Parts: sequence; structure tokens; C-alpha cells
Amino acid sequence: MALVVQKYGGSSVANAERIRHVAGRVAARAAAGDRMVVVVSAMGDTTDDLIALAARVRSSAEPLPREMDLLLSTGEIVSSALLSMALHDLGTPAVSLTGQQAGIRTDAVYGRARISGIDTVRIERELAAGRVVVVAGFQGVSEDFDVTTLGRGASDTSAVALAAVLHAASCEIYTDVAGIYTADPRICPSARPLRDIDYYEMLEMATTGARVMHARSVEIGEIYGVEILVASTFDQSRPGTWIRRESIMEKANKVRGIAHQEHIAKVTVRGVPDRPGIAAHLFEPLAEAGISIDTIVQNASVENLTDVTFTVDRSEVGQAAKVVRALLPAIGGRDVIADPNLGSVSIVGTGMVSSPGFAARMFRVLFEHQINIELISTSDIRITCIVRADQVQAAVNALHEAFALDRSD
Amino acid sequence: MALVVQKYGGSSVANAERIRHVAGRVAARAAAGDRMVVVVSAMGDTTDDLIALAARVRSSAEPLPREMDLLLSTGEIVSSALLSMALHDLGTPAVSLTGQQAGIRTDAVYGRARISGIDTVRIERELAAGRVVVVAGFQGVSEDFDVTTLGRGASDTSAVALAAVLHAASCEIYTDVAGIYTADPRICPSARPLRDIDYYEMLEMATTGARVMHARSVEIGEIYGVEILVASTFDQSRPGTWIRRESIMEKANKVRGIAHQEHIAKVTVRGVPDRPGIAAHLFEPLAEAGISIDTIVQNASVENLTDVTFTVDRSEVGQAAKVVRALLPAIGGRDVIADPNLGSVSIVGTGMVSSPGFAARMFRVLFEHQINIELISTSDIRITCIVRADQVQAAVNALHEAFALDRSD
Repeated sequence: MALVVQKYGGSSVANAERIRHVAGRVAARAAAGDRMVVVVSAMGDTTDDLIALAARVRSSAEPLPREMDLLLSTGEIVSSALLSMALHDLGTPAVSLTGQQAGIRTDAVYGRARISGIDTVRIERELAAGRVVVVAGFQGVSEDFDVTTLGRGASDTSAVALAAVLHAASCEIYTDVAGIYTADPRICPSARPLRDIDYYEMLEMATTGARVMHARSVEIGEIYGVEILVASTFDQSRPGTWIRRESIMEKANKVRGIAHQEHIAKVTVRGVPDRPGIAAHLFEPLAEAGISIDTIVQNASVENLTDVTFTVDRSEVGQAAKVVRALLPAIGGRDVIADPNLGSVSIVGTGMVSSPGFAARMFRVLFEHQINIELISTSDIRITCIVRADQVQAAVNALHEAFALDRSD
Repeated sequence: MALVVQKYGGSSVANAERIRHVAGRVAARAAAGDRMVVVVSAMGDTTDDLIALAARVRSSAEPLPREMDLLLSTGEIVSSALLSMALHDLGTPAVSLTGQQAGIRTDAVYGRARISGIDTVRIERELAAGRVVVVAGFQGVSEDFDVTTLGRGASDTSAVALAAVLHAASCEIYTDVAGIYTADPRICPSARPLRDIDYYEMLEMATTGARVMHARSVEIGEIYGVEILVASTFDQSRPGTWIRRESIMEKANKVRGIAHQEHIAKVTVRGVPDRPGIAAHLFEPLAEAGISIDTIVQNASVENLTDVTFTVDRSEVGQAAKVVRALLPAIGGRDVIADPNLGSVSIVGTGMVSSPGFAARMFRVLFEHQINIELISTSDIRITCIVRADQVQAAVNALHEAFALDRSD
């Protein structure tokens, strides 16, 4: 009698028919003897629809995060109640719980709250009563009993966190793709699903553009050692990808996947006097404005003047440039240039740090395909190149082939 | 600085534009210095849409009241969050609360839970902070922290109960009609809104077909002495109707309104041996089947056999007849006849009990219009005649004219 946590994404519960399909899968598993906790996202485009509705009742764009969280939390509650009903219909006892009822406590940072703890009393009582527990994902409750949401895509995080505290045998994330691909199959036809991937590799993939998993869910999985299966809701013949600790030494020194992002912008502050504290003067105001920075590059100083370049999501480039321009008098910079039409391509794999050959190989492949590199950033297990947006697809395919990712593990 | 509770129904918050309109009204009132608690229903047809969605995920019709309540509660949460946002947009501080957050505790009778108490700590804290408190109507929370709903139309009950415990100066119910009419204006063109009406009269109107107010809200208003204004959301030029204790003696002896129902069915059990306990044997199983009975008539006994007739909502006649047929062997009845095509017409007014002339006048008016009376039931302040469904409209208009209801109070 294993305890299994499953999570079904928005496309998996997008309409009544799909909810019945999911119920059938859950019921079969419960009938086989597993105790089941099932986390669901909001149906299809519900969250976007609610956001659009909120925009229509207001003329101001000032964020109202508390009210927005309460509003958005309803989408997952609807899915959870419907899935519970569909399970009852198949004769499988079930109960739907809101984030609050499931004991998911968070801080009060609306819109991107973090889970502070999970009180599992109610879930365990329902499991002991023989019920499938259906939990509304993406949400929790603050100390003041206000409803919070954990960020877009964070139903993954709800699921992995529940699997961790419940000591589940596994956490299964069901989605509309067949697993974690070596590259995005929408732009790279030869991409194929990996059989397994290390937490750190997955994290790098997630933070550099692979949209399959919410990055924080992977972190939690790593910390608590939750083995996560990512697989298709619709095609049970495909095995999916296991995210778990790397155990096979031979795999450690290999590129495992190509990630990419298509909506990157670059902001360059030119002619900044190169003195201590310059980075803080520049990036603290950006952080206060809620702008999230990715890569930062500071050129070598010439005549004590330097250029500072950073990348942001394209949607934030206007505000970022505005913030930085206002700082020019204080930091003594010359001017600010923004380039909104960039993207990124990354190669990801554990052990790359010990093999400098990977970076050189990546740069040569891009050069051979006449793809200019605007910026480079690296981590232990990732090398990212910022390139022109219209060259991202070519870069992904070239690297996928060069690192032989189209061949099986 | 009066404390005012307002409630806006589903048609008043049916879309973004209407929510903004309601926000404008609430904001103006708050700016004038009133402290405001605003109860909202679900937007337009949301509740029906959710019920339809629930039906599509299931093939069984077995009720799942707990899951259904959790599902339906989301509709009012959406409205409350959106209205709060629209208020913020007008510069009026506001906070939206779920039934649970508003402290509305209920029993665990899903689908028609009763309020057991209201913990006003959170609401009072928000009011003290200068915020308009927007409460999701129709819902509360059980002792086990499960979400409950109070029954269709019960946002009125949420509002009046909040007005009672908060000792509000008044409770204002805003809807798509201009108040409580002397008869339903959709079928009686000369109907007009009353300036005021007694709680008991309103209760009789509500339980015999006037759909404007939820009957339980009127009961609570009467018990706690909450003065309730029913008025139009859209047409502020019309004064609406006050529901409050009758204070003007002259009005006590008058027909105040005509109520009607169009979907009544009659079930007759014929040839039942007339012995003690027969009513209990018949009606206990109906109550257990959840069938709500209105009028009951037992004919005078002939040769120790009697006929028992009762009325139910048309949607329940099939099940009611089935339950009763199954009882025939036990109670010794001959057969069961069901007539699904009936309606009712009622005259309502305090003091009618002391003036038997009203009943005689009603019967004569119906006779003069060739409307046959199938059953009669009376209370202190109401006389109801069951008639053919297709004669309800004629009966309402005839009585409205005969009792001079088209003339002002």
C-alpha cells in the first residue's frame, strides 16, 4: 500500500471529459491498492481568464496581490471539487481539499508565497478513512488566514511538498508532454524524452527555459529526496522522465539537454566610473522595482570607465531602462542602451565544470552556424549564450545535433 | 458614521461593467462616512454553470453535497475579490473575505446549511482599519472547516445575519427589481412596489412564490429587528421597499400583495383507512427522501376510508409518487394519482385572520373568472388557492384588481 502523490496540470483537467479521464486513471491506481493524494491545477485557461476579468473591473494597473490571490485560488478549488465528484462517480471515495484545508501554510508574500509548513492531520485522517485526497494546487493560507498563491505553475510545488511531508513513495507530475525532453520539441524535431535527469540538471533546465516543471518544486524534491516522475496524462504507453539523484557515474560527464528562452532583453549602462559599490547602486533599485535580473556582465575597465550589461525578461525591459536612466546622474554613467530582441540557449549537464571542452565546443558550433554570441554566463552544470532572438531555434538544433542528444541515453 | 450592510445579487455583479457600477455606489456611500459591509452573490449564471459542469463530470445523479458546496462557493469568492479590486481602483480601501474568513460558522448540512454563529473579529478589525469589507455571500464553514453553502438565494441570509450581529443601522438588498411588488410585474402589469411591508407578510410572500427575498433572511430580520431595504441596483430614483415591523395600525387589515407559484404538483392517495398515525406513515418516508411538502389536505372520512392530498414542487412529483406507491401495501391505500400541472395564488396581509370576508371575496373573484379551486390552505395572514397552472396568471390579475392593489398605499 504505497502512498503516491500525483499532480495533473491545467491541460489535463481542461474540460469535463478530461477530468473523467484523470478520474479513471486515479481510480484504477487506488483500486490497485495505492493510497492517493492528487494535486490539480485550474482547468485550462481559467487562471488567465480570471486575470483578464480582474483587469476589466479596474483601470489602474497597481497590483492588488491579496485580492488577486483570493480570486485565482478559486480556479484550483473548482478542479479539485470536480475531480472528487468524478471519482465518486466511479465508486472511488474521495474528498477535495482547498490549500488551507490541506494544511498548506505559507508566508504572506501574495502571488509568490513560499510554503512554511504543512499540517498533514486532515490529509492523514482522510487517507485513513480510505479516501483519495484531491488537493487544490497552487495555494495555501497565511498566518492571518488569508489565501495565498505560490506563483504560476506552482501546483508542481504543492505536489512535491506534499510528497515530501507525507513521505510518499513517489511524486508523479502528469502533463501534456511525455517527459523532460533533450530540447523543446516544438522547435527541435529530433528532441526526445530523457529516461532520467538529476535534480540540478532539471533545475538548470527549468530556470533557463524548459517550462515543464516549476523550478521550486525541483529544489524541494532535491532537498527532501522526492523522486519525481514527469509523464503524459494522455499517452500511458510512454514511460516519462524520472527526476532523481544521479546514480550512474558514466552519465555524469555529458550534455543532457538544451534549454532556451525566446524573450530576453539586454540593458547596457555605458561609461560608468569603475568604483566599489557600483553594482549595488545599480541593482538594488532594480530589485526594489520588482525587476528580476538574469545574467550580469561587467566589462574590463578602460580608463577607469566600464560598461555594465544585464538581461531581463522582454516584458520588463522598458521599466528596467527607465529605472537605470534615473540612476545615471548618481552613478555617473554616460548612457543606457536597451536591446529587446534577444534569446538564450543553454547546454545543461552535470560535470561540465570539470571539462572545459564543453564551452569551447558550444562556441565553435554556434560560430559554424554564424550565430553571434552577445553574452555568456555559466554555472557548474550549465553554459548559457545570449543570442539574437531569431537565431535561437537554429542554435538549439545545431547544439542538439552536435552533442548527439538525438541518440538514446 | 452608521454601519451599513449592503447585498448585491447575481444580476447586479453579472459582468465587469456592473461590478464597477456597484463599486461606484459603495465608494460614494463610504466617502459619505458610512462604514460598509458588502455581501455579494456569484456573477450572473455562474452557479448554474458550475452545477452544469458538475453534471458533466459524472454519470450518476447521486448528490455529493460536500463537494458541490466547495465547488459552488467559488462563485461568490470570485465576485467578492473583483468588487474589492474595483473599490481599490476608485481609491476606496477594501478587503474581500470568504464566508470562512468573515467568521460565518454553520452546521454541516451541505447545500442548505444554517448559520450557527458569526465570529465578527476579522470584520471588525477590517472596519476599524477603514476598509470596506466585501463578503462572499451564500457560504460559511462547518466545525470541521468544511465549506458549506446556505441554499440558493441565501446571500440575502448572509447579509441580514451580518447586519444582525454587527448591529448595523440597516441592511440594504440591491437587486434587479425596484422592491417588493404587490404582485409579480412579469405577469401582472398593474403591480407596483410597496413602500413597506411587515416581516410576516414578506415571509408569506417569499414562501408562496415572491422570489425577491430568501425566506430565511426575512425570519432572521424579524428575530433581530433588522430593517431591510429591498431596492434596485440600477435605478436609484426609485425608493425601494422597507421590510420592517408594522407600525401603522390602519394598514393591518388589508391585502398587501398577491403571490403565486407556477410549478406545483398534487399527489392524492385514495382509499386510505382512516386511522391514527396515517399521516406519519405517509410523510416520514417523504421527508427521508428529501421531498418538501407544501399543502396537505385530508378529506372527511367516508365508510372509514379517506383521501390524502398533498402538493410538492413539480420537479419532485415523480419521486414523491414513487415513494407513496411503495407505501400503499403498508398503509392500505387503494391508489395514487399525481397531477403535475398546477399552480398557486395567494393573497397576503396581516389581520386577514380576523376578517373572514377576505377568503369569501377571494373565492368569489376566482369563481367569477371561472377559475376552479383545487385545494385551499390558509395561515394567519395568507390564503392560498391551488389552481390549474394555465390559470395562475388570470387569477393573479383578477385578485390584484379586486383588492385594489394597483392604487398606492
